[in-house]
Amino acid sequence: MKKIVLIILMSVIHQSISSQIKPSEKYNLMPWPQHILENKSVFKIDKSLTIGIFGEDTEKRVEKASIKFLRRLANRTGVFIDKGFPIKEKKASIIINFDTVSVLNINNNESYSLDIQKDKILINAKTDVGVLRGLETLLQLVNFNKNEYYFEGVSIKDSPRFVWRGLMIDAARHFQPVAVIKRNLDAMASVKLNVFHWHLTDDQGFRVESKVFPKLQEIAADGLFYTQEQIKDVVKYASNLGIRVVPEFDVPGHASAILAAYPALGSKDNYKYNVERYSGVFDPTLNPSKEVTYLFLETLFREIAPLFPDEYFHIGGDENEGKHWDSNKEIQDFKKKNNLKSNHDLQTYFNIKLEKVLNKLGKKLMGWDEILTPSTPKTSVIHSWRGKHEGLEQSTLIEAAKKGYQAVLSAGYYIDRMLSVDQHYSVDPIGNAILTKEERKRVLGAEATMWSELVTPLTIDSRIWPRTAAIAERFWSSKKVIDIKNMRKRLKVINFQLEEIGITHLRNKNVILRNISNNTENGSLETLTKICEPLKVYSRNKGGTEYKTFSPFTLFADACSADAEDALVFNNLVVSYVKNRDAKSLNKIIIHLNIWIKNHNDFKQLDHNPIIESLTALSKNTSEVSKLLLDAILNKKISNKNISKGEKLIEKLKTPTEDVEVVIVESFNKLLYFCKKNYLKR
Amino acid sequence: MKKIVLIILMSVIHQSISSQIKPSEKYNLMPWPQHILENKSVFKIDKSLTIGIFGEDTEKRVEKASIKFLRRLANRTGVFIDKGFPIKEKKASIIINFDTVSVLNINNNESYSLDIQKDKILINAKTDVGVLRGLETLLQLVNFNKNEYYFEGVSIKDSPRFVWRGLMIDAARHFQPVAVIKRNLDAMASVKLNVFHWHLTDDQGFRVESKVFPKLQEIAADGLFYTQEQIKDVVKYASNLGIRVVPEFDVPGHASAILAAYPALGSKDNYKYNVERYSGVFDPTLNPSKEVTYLFLETLFREIAPLFPDEYFHIGGDENEGKHWDSNKEIQDFKKKNNLKSNHDLQTYFNIKLEKVLNKLGKKLMGWDEILTPSTPKTSVIHSWRGKHEGLEQSTLIEAAKKGYQAVLSAGYYIDRMLSVDQHYSVDPIGNAILTKEERKRVLGAEATMWSELVTPLTIDSRIWPRTAAIAERFWSSKKVIDIKNMRKRLKVINFQLEEIGITHLRNKNVILRNISNNTENGSLETLTKICEPLKVYSRNKGGTEYKTFSPFTLFADACSADAEDALVFNNLVVSYVKNRDAKSLNKIIIHLNIWIKNHNDFKQLDHNPIIESLTALSKNTSEVSKLLLDAILNKKISNKNISKGEKLIEKLKTPTEDVEVVIVESFNKLLYFCKKNYLKR
Repeated sequence: MKKIVLIILMSVIHQSISSQIKPSEKYNLMPWPQHILENKSVFKIDKSLTIGIFGEDTEKRVEKASIKFLRRLANRTGVFIDKGFPIKEKKASIIINFDTVSVLNINNNESYSLDIQKDKILINAKTDVGVLRGLETLLQLVNFNKNEYYFEGVSIKDSPRFVWRGLMIDAARHFQPVAVIKRNLDAMASVKLNVFHWHLTDDQGFRVESKVFPKLQEIAADGLFYTQEQIKDVVKYASNLGIRVVPEFDVPGHASAILAAYPALGSKDNYKYNVERYSGVFDPTLNPSKEVTYLFLETLFREIAPLFPDEYFHIGGDENEGKHWDSNKEIQDFKKKNNLKSNHDLQTYFNIKLEKVLNKLGKKLMGWDEILTPSTPKTSVIHSWRGKHEGLEQSTLIEAAKKGYQAVLSAGYYIDRMLSVDQHYSVDPIGNAILTKEERKRVLGAEATMWSELVTPLTIDSRIWPRTAAIAERFWSSKKVIDIKNMRKRLKVINFQLEEIGITHLRNKNVILRNISNNTENGSLETLTKICEPLKVYSRNKGGTEYKTFSPFTLFADACSADAEDALVFNNLVVSYVKNRDAKSLNKIIIHLNIWIKNHNDFKQLDHNPIIESLTALSKNTSEVSKLLLDAILNKKISNKNISKGEKLIEKLKTPTEDVEVVIVESFNKLLYFCKKNYLKR
Repeated sequence: MKKIVLIILMSVIHQSISSQIKPSEKYNLMPWPQHILENKSVFKIDKSLTIGIFGEDTEKRVEKASIKFLRRLANRTGVFIDKGFPIKEKKASIIINFDTVSVLNINNNESYSLDIQKDKILINAKTDVGVLRGLETLLQLVNFNKNEYYFEGVSIKDSPRFVWRGLMIDAARHFQPVAVIKRNLDAMASVKLNVFHWHLTDDQGFRVESKVFPKLQEIAADGLFYTQEQIKDVVKYASNLGIRVVPEFDVPGHASAILAAYPALGSKDNYKYNVERYSGVFDPTLNPSKEVTYLFLETLFREIAPLFPDEYFHIGGDENEGKHWDSNKEIQDFKKKNNLKSNHDLQTYFNIKLEKVLNKLGKKLMGWDEILTPSTPKTSVIHSWRGKHEGLEQSTLIEAAKKGYQAVLSAGYYIDRMLSVDQHYSVDPIGNAILTKEERKRVLGAEATMWSELVTPLTIDSRIWPRTAAIAERFWSSKKVIDIKNMRKRLKVINFQLEEIGITHLRNKNVILRNISNNTENGSLETLTKICEPLKVYSRNKGGTEYKTFSPFTLFADACSADAEDALVFNNLVVSYVKNRDAKSLNKIIIHLNIWIKNHNDFKQLDHNPIIESLTALSKNTSEVSKLLLDAILNKKISNKNISKGEKLIEKLKTPTEDVEVVIVESFNKLLYFCKKNYLKR
């Protein structure tokens, strides 16, 4: 009897404790919803689960999403759900209601409510796309105990902060096949992104089939391009997910590939235009002084624009240094004749002409922020890519919005720089800027950008994910959702769940490690990837000439990614220990050091080929510093000789090798300094 | 001086030893070539490597293959090859010569010679496709030391034993997207397979877009089908690899999906035809007594046949039990009127009509061996699937060839049965049959068949590979190449190299293990996969009604595959030890037992959800038997109680659980019997 009382008492206490836990600590939702209320229900997932759709699903978005939902739920839980397709009956256990079918544009309503009760789940939305957002939230609420899987009992009301939440993928530098695009669209939808910006042309390739100008794919694509059928297929696939597709055709610069196919459009006579193999900013530029250039572009856009139903059409317009314009007398004369003072003015002239072409095709011209000049028509859309990194106090986004332009931000979300998720997550698109209601409305939202100079279909997922999931939260959730520690906790789960969609970031890491070790990887390489990160902010591929487009991207650096997981933990431990001298941190530090000491023994067992050889110093030096520090810590003494030895080893580890940096090296330094201060034998 | 003499002497001895090593022990070629001679050259792979193509490459097969070769070589070795495309100059380091462009048919010449010298590699072939075969051989000859990668110096002359070397993929039971098909085509080419048999329709789905009969994809495909553009793309992709594509449209049986779309073609009135969700042999059958059936098929084939340039067109024709025919009075009357005594006769009548339709379209009718009846036209092609397993003394292949039919064998190569590679490798298509020259010529070759009832895009690669590589050797290499141990040694390397082509068999295993363990997999599940195999010969999914097409295939059984690697090793050790009582085997047995004992501790650390719970007994019983056996072996004694306990545990382990069998259980039994015999305390 006493026992029972005690159990009841404990359970009451437990409940009251658990009810104090913040929802954000309990649930791994991302993006975090606007409103969430817990109820005490649990909806058991078993074979009897059914979905009923109520609403005119004329685009079949909800039906398709429901089928995918059922497949993912069955595959994740192993439950043999009996009805594999939505049922017609009102007695379905998941009841979906919506009013209208979305037109995919910036005014689309994506709000939804989700209510999970004991025997029933209700999803209500204004639009079909709202339902899709709700289904993704529901899938993030699957939990289990050892007897069953269930949905957590919560009531959610949710809607996005920004109407434009994008991911740009550069398919020009390295071509990304349809399968890569589709799996990333699925992943985008899973974190409620709604704009896929498809960077389709650049110096390194023109990736769209043109029937009018077939040389574009014959000469300018190395055989790697999307057919028009494939583009339609991708656009339809995206539409099914409630994702708009904004294509980018980069002109007048970034046009080496176009000019390799049609050199007559170039700004420099007798220049040998080639598809570019290196990275960087190049001189080949379309000639804005010739009518044929506009004729070419109008004809091309007339052919290609209809493939993309979206109203926005991105023309790039960035990074034109105008060198070929300067060296062309005709172009200089043209500038004078038209009273164009600078190359910037000339480019604006070009953009204005292009805007008229696009307007005729029902399109809004969008371009990178270089297109913003005093005479740029207000109907243009500014894509802000320059900000603090480029020496500006504030991104060009706010300036554009204040000047009357619709604007989208990418400064701060350049995921190809390989920076920590914390940095991107901490960038608020608006920040402290004070905007009028009209100005705020012109800030459409933001996009993460995946430039592909250094990524291939094998590695691109690991550069996009999981960081883009946290960025997606920045674009969707309240400005107040900023707790990095909590974000990281949730991201860890979301990261792994991306696998079920087909994202290859986790699985392909070991593919690379097996490859470089001739299939002898024994965990030692993986241990190193957890303390190494690829060089950041374009210091890999310095000057753009270390790698060609066809160079190997199957190297150790390609198996590493931002936010190396052991480094993150270790660096925090060292900060804590040096500050607090706590035994708990110390014990964990010792475990880490031991792992790295021993790891070099495993490393030596690998088949040594030239790639493994080139990593030996990294492995050995890490092991030796760890040993030296461990000895000092355990014995509470260190000699001057060992301090000097440690400093030298740390210096070596600081030097980037094989395109990675060892991101625990500062912690090694702190520990060494700590030992020197406290344990030096004098 | 003495030292130098000694070194020279040792090196002479070493050379003479190494020259005694058989090439098949040294090189990991698969399929093994017809002639190989070693020379002492080594061709160093560095950035200066270039390819020159000499021959009229009008189909661009060699150019495309050369570019792929350069990418794979760079990615495998990390070498930054300077020229990423073939060069025009005669001074290229890899010189390719060929005479003609292949027409892809059974008379195509695929022979080639490959000569690797110190500074030059020569590939000579009659045809472009022959060159492709040679390039794949060359890629299998990459080796390395710690300083460099190089090609082994050999001279090879090679040609295939059979002209038809196929892989069938069933895209009907579970749809396989284009990306799955393409990566498998690449893998096929890497082991010199040359026929892709595409099983496109069955009870569970009609997977081809028809513009004439759009209900086929609208009603009979659940939205999962190939567009005509995609089919053309796949056929072109295959052609670039020197692979023919033979489509299969299964009629008159296996036609539930067709009849769900067009019930008027069915044999049973008022029958509710549905796309089938289960597996097995079903009754819905086209009605052979109605003219509209032939009109439908002729119209459909007229539309679809042109997508497939190959001369052979597979109509299935198998497993029609004729139940709906028996129950249809009109059909019975039709049989009488046409003097057709049996349903088999009626089906032959149907086939003869169909053959005429196909002949008009320039196609040869091919069908599973049920189509072979006395009145079957000699122009038909027999696909032999029945053999020993179905109670026949010999496969129907030989019978067909002797009767005057061209024939292709699949009996013995049903890889979906999940049998060991040894079994398939040991099946010779002709065996001891004595054939005339003409009969032999009619034996075109053979095909592995990947039926997809139990596989999805996530798992299909692990069911096809690596076993199909060994089967490909059976189809290409000399009949005398039969050493299983040597095959296994080479297959181990080929298996891993398939990853670089994009085959996902290795990487997706851990995706499944992470999924079922909620990302807590710590190696314990993987250890279990190395001693467990999925149930064989259709005992998984008994009666075809355990799994529906949309049931989860992300279970533990899906992470297991044939030829579980630790089981293979352990079973050999036990055989050896019980026979020879050798310490070497015993030591290794002890290591294995210790791993399994400890593994259960790790297993207990996993997040326990219902799936993990269901595996607990397997993990625990394996651990306990191992402990019991280890104790007995180390102490050289065992009690009657422990024998009885061991027997009970082994009995439990023998019972399949979660669709797998523990394939070391017989070895456990042997060890227990050994202990009983030798160590029992009386």
